[in-house]
Amino acid sequence: MLPRGRRRALGAATLLLLVVVVVGFFLFGRDPEYGLQAAATLDGDPYGSRNRSTSNLQPLLPPKCELLHVAIVCAGHNSSREVITLVKSVLFYRKNPLHLHLVTDAVARSILETHFRTWMVPAVAIRFYDAEELKPLISWIPNKHYSGLYGLMKLVLPSILPLSLARVVVLDTDVTFSSDIAELWALFAHFSDKQVIGLVENQSDWYLGNLWKNHKPWPALGRGFNTGVILLRLDRLRQSGWEQMWKLMAKRELLTLQATSLADQDVFNAVIKEHPELVHPLPCVWNVQLSDHTLAERCYLEAADLKVIHWNSPKKLRVKNKHAEFFRNLHLTFLGYDGKLLRRELFGCPSQLPPEAEQLQQAMAQLDEAEPCFEFRQQQLTVHRVHITFLPHRPPPPRPHDVTLVAQLSMDRLQMLEALCRHWPGPMSLALYLTDAEAQQFLHFVGTSPVLSARKDVAYHVVYREGPLYPVNQLRNVALAQALTSYVFLSDIDFLPAYSLYDYLRASIEQLELSSLKQKVALVVPAFETLHYRFSFPNSKAELLTLLDAGSLHTFRYHEWPQGHAPTDYARWREAQAPYRVQWAADYEPYVVVPRDCPRYDPRFVGFGWNKVAHIIELDAQEYELLVLPEAFSIHLPHAPSLDISRFRSSPTYRDCLQAFKEEFHQGLSRRYGAAALKYLTALQPSQSRA
Amino acid sequence: MLPRGRRRALGAATLLLLVVVVVGFFLFGRDPEYGLQAAATLDGDPYGSRNRSTSNLQPLLPPKCELLHVAIVCAGHNSSREVITLVKSVLFYRKNPLHLHLVTDAVARSILETHFRTWMVPAVAIRFYDAEELKPLISWIPNKHYSGLYGLMKLVLPSILPLSLARVVVLDTDVTFSSDIAELWALFAHFSDKQVIGLVENQSDWYLGNLWKNHKPWPALGRGFNTGVILLRLDRLRQSGWEQMWKLMAKRELLTLQATSLADQDVFNAVIKEHPELVHPLPCVWNVQLSDHTLAERCYLEAADLKVIHWNSPKKLRVKNKHAEFFRNLHLTFLGYDGKLLRRELFGCPSQLPPEAEQLQQAMAQLDEAEPCFEFRQQQLTVHRVHITFLPHRPPPPRPHDVTLVAQLSMDRLQMLEALCRHWPGPMSLALYLTDAEAQQFLHFVGTSPVLSARKDVAYHVVYREGPLYPVNQLRNVALAQALTSYVFLSDIDFLPAYSLYDYLRASIEQLELSSLKQKVALVVPAFETLHYRFSFPNSKAELLTLLDAGSLHTFRYHEWPQGHAPTDYARWREAQAPYRVQWAADYEPYVVVPRDCPRYDPRFVGFGWNKVAHIIELDAQEYELLVLPEAFSIHLPHAPSLDISRFRSSPTYRDCLQAFKEEFHQGLSRRYGAAALKYLTALQPSQSRA
Repeated sequence: MLPRGRRRALGAATLLLLVVVVVGFFLFGRDPEYGLQAAATLDGDPYGSRNRSTSNLQPLLPPKCELLHVAIVCAGHNSSREVITLVKSVLFYRKNPLHLHLVTDAVARSILETHFRTWMVPAVAIRFYDAEELKPLISWIPNKHYSGLYGLMKLVLPSILPLSLARVVVLDTDVTFSSDIAELWALFAHFSDKQVIGLVENQSDWYLGNLWKNHKPWPALGRGFNTGVILLRLDRLRQSGWEQMWKLMAKRELLTLQATSLADQDVFNAVIKEHPELVHPLPCVWNVQLSDHTLAERCYLEAADLKVIHWNSPKKLRVKNKHAEFFRNLHLTFLGYDGKLLRRELFGCPSQLPPEAEQLQQAMAQLDEAEPCFEFRQQQLTVHRVHITFLPHRPPPPRPHDVTLVAQLSMDRLQMLEALCRHWPGPMSLALYLTDAEAQQFLHFVGTSPVLSARKDVAYHVVYREGPLYPVNQLRNVALAQALTSYVFLSDIDFLPAYSLYDYLRASIEQLELSSLKQKVALVVPAFETLHYRFSFPNSKAELLTLLDAGSLHTFRYHEWPQGHAPTDYARWREAQAPYRVQWAADYEPYVVVPRDCPRYDPRFVGFGWNKVAHIIELDAQEYELLVLPEAFSIHLPHAPSLDISRFRSSPTYRDCLQAFKEEFHQGLSRRYGAAALKYLTALQPSQSRA
Repeated sequence: MLPRGRRRALGAATLLLLVVVVVGFFLFGRDPEYGLQAAATLDGDPYGSRNRSTSNLQPLLPPKCELLHVAIVCAGHNSSREVITLVKSVLFYRKNPLHLHLVTDAVARSILETHFRTWMVPAVAIRFYDAEELKPLISWIPNKHYSGLYGLMKLVLPSILPLSLARVVVLDTDVTFSSDIAELWALFAHFSDKQVIGLVENQSDWYLGNLWKNHKPWPALGRGFNTGVILLRLDRLRQSGWEQMWKLMAKRELLTLQATSLADQDVFNAVIKEHPELVHPLPCVWNVQLSDHTLAERCYLEAADLKVIHWNSPKKLRVKNKHAEFFRNLHLTFLGYDGKLLRRELFGCPSQLPPEAEQLQQAMAQLDEAEPCFEFRQQQLTVHRVHITFLPHRPPPPRPHDVTLVAQLSMDRLQMLEALCRHWPGPMSLALYLTDAEAQQFLHFVGTSPVLSARKDVAYHVVYREGPLYPVNQLRNVALAQALTSYVFLSDIDFLPAYSLYDYLRASIEQLELSSLKQKVALVVPAFETLHYRFSFPNSKAELLTLLDAGSLHTFRYHEWPQGHAPTDYARWREAQAPYRVQWAADYEPYVVVPRDCPRYDPRFVGFGWNKVAHIIELDAQEYELLVLPEAFSIHLPHAPSLDISRFRSSPTYRDCLQAFKEEFHQGLSRRYGAAALKYLTALQPSQSRA
């Protein structure tokens, strides 16, 4: 160890050296707001303990409230999930407004548009760019990398991003932030006048070549650079003819190499090999690469602080390396992080809420906390973050009489999904009410179920939990809005349809010529229930009637709530050979098949009670004819009472609030349907309400 | 705006000034490793945009791997929960090893000791100090603050912490970190030679006085200082006779003031008023105080970055102020954060795992991922983080024949708790398998239930979720270990005991003189089941028999798994007037009452199957006599099949692994009980196993 005085002198000398650099920078550099940070290579040193005192001096950040631009290419269902996790990690640490430039295919666009619209994070602007339009620009490059054509699109960003945009941070979907992105943005200030691309060295020996026989990588400077995190000076790239430059280089290399192995990264490296003056090397901590044969350990064992983790193995989180667990934990933090907590305003920056969010905030502020139904009203107003088609989904080919089963569920009903898939071979649109962490469990659940993994015609839409009451009708509306067939079967998750129901419904719709009828029709599927855990599901109406007579089956809620299904007229159904019409009556809540454009559910009914009843009233008010199908049936399986029904039973306030909402619903009906709505009001007797 | 050249020159000048300070510091300062940061007061400026360029220059951090010391005073169940959330926030951002010095009462010690032992976070050392012993040192000070005597204990820390300890960060339990604690530690380096206490100014007008008629606060310098976050130079405090100093001051003020209003804070401020040279003012962001009348906005609207949030209103998170939502979101991040993700090693620092954690890591590393039962074996080895007595708990007074109901549950069975409380008026010890986020939902659930809130004799032990299989027997063992009565009723959460069962069991234990018997006895409580959601619970054995004959009740699992309870001999029970002995038979799994020191459950049975069966075998092998009680009964309520039973049914691997574990269990039995265990092996017929 050095004597204390000597150490001090050394420290002072180092610092003075630093000072000269910094002062020079302030006097002659381009961007006086920013500070400095040394770059690093794997074989050089400067991120380790040796220069710890300088690396600890963090860069000056961009000015408060400066807008930072980020570009991401994203296609498909799985990458869309990745982008959300990446954005969560960025938002968690950020202190600046952000503008995200998302290059997406149609699938990712529809998912991310819904997600960001419902997320309502302050000070985040989004702009979409159509990846389809970019394909001709890069499809001439043969590419062996798993990212396909989309990987190559980073090359054309300077051409497609707005001309007014001078700088952008470009991110792969498989990176996770562990620090404030403003620190990365601040590194633009260290670019020399010639430098246009900021990159971290590649943390593997790939570009050194000779990893195996005939391994011939694209040309690169030393180990080359990794393009998972890029700082682009768009203004200078445009000026310097970037488009010509990379195309020329790619064409030249493709004369001898058959394709890119690592997509855009090969081309970037070829350009840099030829023009090393273009690259500004970034410190290794800004792109810690976790492939199977990573050399990243050289970076992170010495570094004080990791900034960005890059899961650049096709195995992603399942990659094997000594410290994978550590990095997984950082990533899992954001996978499971409750996205609603990121709706944080940026203090001291001008408010940047979208208009809907502004309105919502005002409406929430006007609620009276002392009012007994406050919790309900708050829940009714809540806008839940929605991630549509959370898993890969292949919509069924369009068929005029096709029917989608629509239902909603939370975590405690996941075990119904396999049985449901066995009973309903057709398309389904299911809304799942989950926390972010539960959504990950759900992913695992589907992944380990061969039955569920095989079904690409089931669309799962995650609605993120917020508030104490189950937003049953909002969930139904999400699932309904995402159904893609002409007809929908509005079911509940605890029901298993007859094995033949899907085919039978399609045949019935065709035979009844529903699509050509002037009269709107709702086909009623009679509902039954079993009280047994194990239970042999009837294969036909005849078998069902036998079980009914034996007392193993009952008509649904016969003991507790007969009026819910009484108008279906089970006695008539027993004998029926043809569809028959039934009349609405108070509290009727059958399971029905209706056209996709049917009325939405009333979102004021949250928690337990009246959520389906109100919808059937709406159908009746819009003069849907209720037609019971003679061979259709669906059976409810037993489960423990929900928390909401328990609360309803034990809380007089709960019941009073439900009563109040019923009355408000009826006032709405009167406004919309006038005298015709009088019959519903007459039928409403408070004493009849469920207790 | 200044012209560009002028701005540069100014920047350079500022920087040069800064450099002189820093270099001077390196040459002449005490701690060459550390950097600098300006302090701030509410009416002064220096945290805002005006000096942004310097405040953006973050302090140099302490050397990598330097051990940081933190002291916290904590008493009772609620503060123990707070401490865990605080520590989570510290661990999330920390990059240094930590030593926590916890001054605790007996309750907090037992909770936190278990919690940290099972948490196994690398590079965190814990030392406990008995608050009981400190009481005489401060109990002479009358205190009106809600923290009671414990609040005052911060005053005596210099006397009780180890003499070798020169510096410590002292934290209230109600603060949340939003940054690396090393940055706070680094501020020690800015203390002048005289300064011994680092504090943030109080962000309210309290100490200015005259807030209302006769409001007479303790003396303070201006607005005074807040003691939620303190940097203490213990070495200098001890040298300067701190103990005499604060006692003298407190005694003097108590001549005119009757008591402290804000505990230790009043005394600290009185001392500082007299000796202003002792205090080193810290930047306001290190203790952003969120009381109802906070002035903190002046701090955080200007600051680039908040470091520590202090919930210093008795209302805590329910405090009302304009930006409460923002701060709540930061806090909720850590309330719901999955604690196991904080088991991150510190790269480049010597490993600091406790020996058990080291062993566990080795055992885990030896598992073969390719083995079909890998997932099970991993689950069996998993050490779950455990938070015992998560809610306030008052153990029942010791009574020799008392019985605690022991059970375990997860989130989907919360709705059973109220009914269970109505059926069992005695003590309960319940293990809850939850995520951190679910534990918060559980807290809310109990808080809104008058039935549950009223019961202080129910102890809830949270076992944090980890891994895909339900660790049913580990949960049972946690609940069993925490039972405080001589006897335990080993039940399951889906069962409701007869209303009279608690009294009847105590009477039976007394009458049978169980405690004086040489023979060990397990009292069998016969199990029944209903398949109906709504169900009128029988008030007596006679009523139960009527329901049984009417077919509304069945003996438990009569249809699916009769051998589970067959030996109870229900026919004999119908007629029995006195307890009768029954013999063990294969697959018997009755619900029993046993002494608290009974054998533990075998943790190898995770997920579904054989978890109780193995325990009953163990009782039989230890020659417990099985005695059926003629008036005891318990009834199982319907619920949907669990995920684990679904997996068991659908996965051959699951069934094969269970079979393998049964065999391993039997090998263990043979080793422990020799030839006596042969009968269990003989009885084990693979074909009999559940399918």
